[in-house]
Amino acid sequence: MVKVIVAGYKGRMGSTAAQMVIDNPDFELVGVYDARSKDQNLNEDDRFKSQDVPAFHDLDQIKTDATVWIDFTIPTAVYENAKFALNHGISPVIGTTGMTDEQVADLQKLAKEKQVGGLIAPNFGISAVLLMQFAQQAAKYFPDVEIIEMHHDDKIDSPSGTAISTAKKIAEVRKPKQQGNPDATETLPGARGAEYEGMRIHAVRLPGLVAHEEVMFGGPGEGLTIRQDSFDRISFMTGVKVAVEKVNQYHELFVGLEHLL
Amino acid sequence: MVKVIVAGYKGRMGSTAAQMVIDNPDFELVGVYDARSKDQNLNEDDRFKSQDVPAFHDLDQIKTDATVWIDFTIPTAVYENAKFALNHGISPVIGTTGMTDEQVADLQKLAKEKQVGGLIAPNFGISAVLLMQFAQQAAKYFPDVEIIEMHHDDKIDSPSGTAISTAKKIAEVRKPKQQGNPDATETLPGARGAEYEGMRIHAVRLPGLVAHEEVMFGGPGEGLTIRQDSFDRISFMTGVKVAVEKVNQYHELFVGLEHLL
Amino acid sequence: MVKVIVAGYKGRMGSTAAQMVIDNPDFELVGVYDARSKDQNLNEDDRFKSQDVPAFHDLDQIKTDATVWIDFTIPTAVYENAKFALNHGISPVIGTTGMTDEQVADLQKLAKEKQVGGLIAPNFGISAVLLMQFAQQAAKYFPDVEIIEMHHDDKIDSPSGTAISTAKKIAEVRKPKQQGNPDATETLPGARGAEYEGMRIHAVRLPGLVAHEEVMFGGPGEGLTIRQDSFDRISFMTGVKVAVEKVNQYHELFVGLEHLL
Amino acid sequence: MVKVIVAGYKGRMGSTAAQMVIDNPDFELVGVYDARSKDQNLNEDDRFKSQDVPAFHDLDQIKTDATVWIDFTIPTAVYENAKFALNHGISPVIGTTGMTDEQVADLQKLAKEKQVGGLIAPNFGISAVLLMQFAQQAAKYFPDVEIIEMHHDDKIDSPSGTAISTAKKIAEVRKPKQQGNPDATETLPGARGAEYEGMRIHAVRLPGLVAHEEVMFGGPGEGLTIRQDSFDRISFMTGVKVAVEKVNQYHELFVGLEHLL
Repeated sequence: MVKVIVAGYKGRMGSTAAQMVIDNPDFELVGVYDARSKDQNLNEDDRFKSQDVPAFHDLDQIKTDATVWIDFTIPTAVYENAKFALNHGISPVIGTTGMTDEQVADLQKLAKEKQVGGLIAPNFGISAVLLMQFAQQAAKYFPDVEIIEMHHDDKIDSPSGTAISTAKKIAEVRKPKQQGNPDATETLPGARGAEYEGMRIHAVRLPGLVAHEEVMFGGPGEGLTIRQDSFDRISFMTGVKVAVEKVNQYHELFVGLEHLL
Repeated sequence: MVKVIVAGYKGRMGSTAAQMVIDNPDFELVGVYDARSKDQNLNEDDRFKSQDVPAFHDLDQIKTDATVWIDFTIPTAVYENAKFALNHGISPVIGTTGMTDEQVADLQKLAKEKQVGGLIAPNFGISAVLLMQFAQQAAKYFPDVEIIEMHHDDKIDSPSGTAISTAKKIAEVRKPKQQGNPDATETLPGARGAEYEGMRIHAVRLPGLVAHEEVMFGGPGEGLTIRQDSFDRISFMTGVKVAVEKVNQYHELFVGLEHLL
Repeated sequence: MVKVIVAGYKGRMGSTAAQMVIDNPDFELVGVYDARSKDQNLNEDDRFKSQDVPAFHDLDQIKTDATVWIDFTIPTAVYENAKFALNHGISPVIGTTGMTDEQVADLQKLAKEKQVGGLIAPNFGISAVLLMQFAQQAAKYFPDVEIIEMHHDDKIDSPSGTAISTAKKIAEVRKPKQQGNPDATETLPGARGAEYEGMRIHAVRLPGLVAHEEVMFGGPGEGLTIRQDSFDRISFMTGVKVAVEKVNQYHELFVGLEHLL
Repeated sequence: MVKVIVAGYKGRMGSTAAQMVIDNPDFELVGVYDARSKDQNLNEDDRFKSQDVPAFHDLDQIKTDATVWIDFTIPTAVYENAKFALNHGISPVIGTTGMTDEQVADLQKLAKEKQVGGLIAPNFGISAVLLMQFAQQAAKYFPDVEIIEMHHDDKIDSPSGTAISTAKKIAEVRKPKQQGNPDATETLPGARGAEYEGMRIHAVRLPGLVAHEEVMFGGPGEGLTIRQDSFDRISFMTGVKVAVEKVNQYHELFVGLEHLL
């Protein structure tokens, strides 16, 4: 049974995280924290009427035997929260963005001193993290790869950050190669997509889509495709759950969910 | 029972067509023709030892009650062959390429005069022809469309001719639209693919692939995808078979298998 | 400009339909109706504060120059609503379910008498309707077909109603055929899926999925796949929009969106 | 530069392997062996006229400084071949099937004694081996999984051996779970596919297909799909190449390409 405190429980991601902890038979929600709230108990919140969990709104007040601190708060609060957790031997699992590199480095130093595990994850979507891991493994054997990312048509930038991260991870292990026919020509410019170290990246934008990525590998007579689909931010909770289960096994603070998979 | 004569039966496509006619219980192979051969009977050809079908090597010699003439010969012969067929009331089904626009127009005029049906098809792949038809129908309801064509990495040109034909057919019926976010930017140039009347076309090139095309449509909360895969030229025989079945119902010469579907 | 009245505008589908009419430059919302409401004007509803559209809560009160009546009400009200519309020369576009076969027949008779077009559609999802149409067309040329439907893992019945409808439509035109190897055996029972007139249907159930269907056709050396994805009921509005645009061109009442595509 | 001898070079797989070695700039073909041949040099074989490589047809004759022995011979010869290789400090890479468990155990013992690496691989298709590895990794985080395997319609058994192997590998790490709705019913029996430890396996059979497998994982709001396509047995050469590159790093004989990936 992992005892968990959730910071930022009044917000959308924080309340979803609190619910995930409540629903998981291996976890126990032993506290919630939100500087925006005056609740003394979680049951004062309409969404959690049947619970009985102490609620805090001041870091200094917090008294808890939690071993994991889930943080979905705000950029200006997360650093102090994480410091508080580490200083009290609680492992932070942080989905809040916005810390500076310096703050992250500070926290990593503190985690090592205190011998406390922790995680800062810009993306808790396990399918995306696994896709990148698998793509990197496959690229060792299949240097020919094309990335197709697909998003809703409101998205401004292309290719997506995840597609570029995928290409970077692949490039780390892939035998350098300029793909395709050396005499290749484009009748319509852009047809072959964006070029990244000899690989090609294609961005599809359509209404109805959410966030999807496909990595295709090809070799003589065969193909391997890895695809991930994100339909809803609720998917992040699968990653938070894995982090809560594993973070106490470590004695340092990682950046990136892949370090715990 | 459709009586068929196959012209060009010594070649790869022609012999495959002869075999298809033999294997089809609704067709009867009543003659074969090839200017390159001296055979008097098809059974002199090692691949067709158990058959008993008259073989011709001179147009003037041909005596036949065939109603359909399948032609997989050569650019310099096909025009005379087709004229011969039409003049004898036989419906030509032509997979041979290389006729001039003038020759095609001549044959179309002759077919009308003689009231004989016929077909010239640059591509007998039914899956590709249906994909184009369906894409055109869907585009009436879904103006947002992206085309992804995928071929082996030896292919020189991109996008493929079929992808451009698909885009053209869609453009004929689609409500004009510049797709995607008006403020869209490409971090890596080419990511959004080639532009064709506001649509986007992406070309993937990988070893192991043969010839594949995917047309994706998106609308609020839904998507429709049509995909065709060509693994082998044997697939053309499905189209030839359909043409043989239907061509006698017409009294003119069509260009494009879609006119018979 | 098509003038539209929306019945059932207080409900989720009805309000979405009202918003769709408001947002479409070719449509004008000239009235709303809901027996559950006391509003005199649509702007009394918090979601539509900036509108100025008369609201009715009694059929007899309704005075309108609408030519289309969108109905997302309740089973006990829809028949009277449709009768009212037809009697006033307004074309009903009905998404409400629950009418008896007799009631539908009555309305169809009335529509013919009054020479008014109309539509009752159990499913306004255009991607699903097009998938069925295309599958039926393709089955004429490819008798080998497998249907894979995919839904969230809460779904109780399998295969889905849409998959069975698709199989039925295919069976109407497909050359009867028992697919696969005649000596085929299942090492694990059920592997080959459900059998429907020699075709096979497979049902996938996974968390994260919504409602998806894929129809795969295969022939020698080629394949054709049609897939539709429904992510959200908002997708129904694309179908309602098409119906509003087209229904006035007809003089009878259809059942099934496919009749207007 | 890895020096390689190819056993069984007169056969289809063996000659393809010899060609692969010749084409690879990091490998050198230093000998070929085939008990069926009388050639003294590979250049006596029409397919390899421009080569100059000694050919052997008797194990006892073989004199070579090869460090890797590729074996695509026959069940009755492979055991003696592998013993010969190991006894001469040459690492066997064996695609020949048909050895008994006892013979394999003998060879593994011998390899350890001689401290020579080796590989027996029933399947050199890297995309299939990676698919199984990735599926096993993903199943740790996604207990909900469905396997869809697709083959040409001549295939007799279903599900495929690879699909069952995949399910077994997943079952080793997956949290036991009966998937789907507990009240689920099949309107058409078999719709939900075959059951394996609570997972579901679906087998698709269509003309045009070759050998394909898709493993779909689902979690709240997301999905992960891994797919492999085998179009041609030439694909095995990618796996043989990897084995030749790596086998000398080991001091034992493995069964299964996955041990070298």
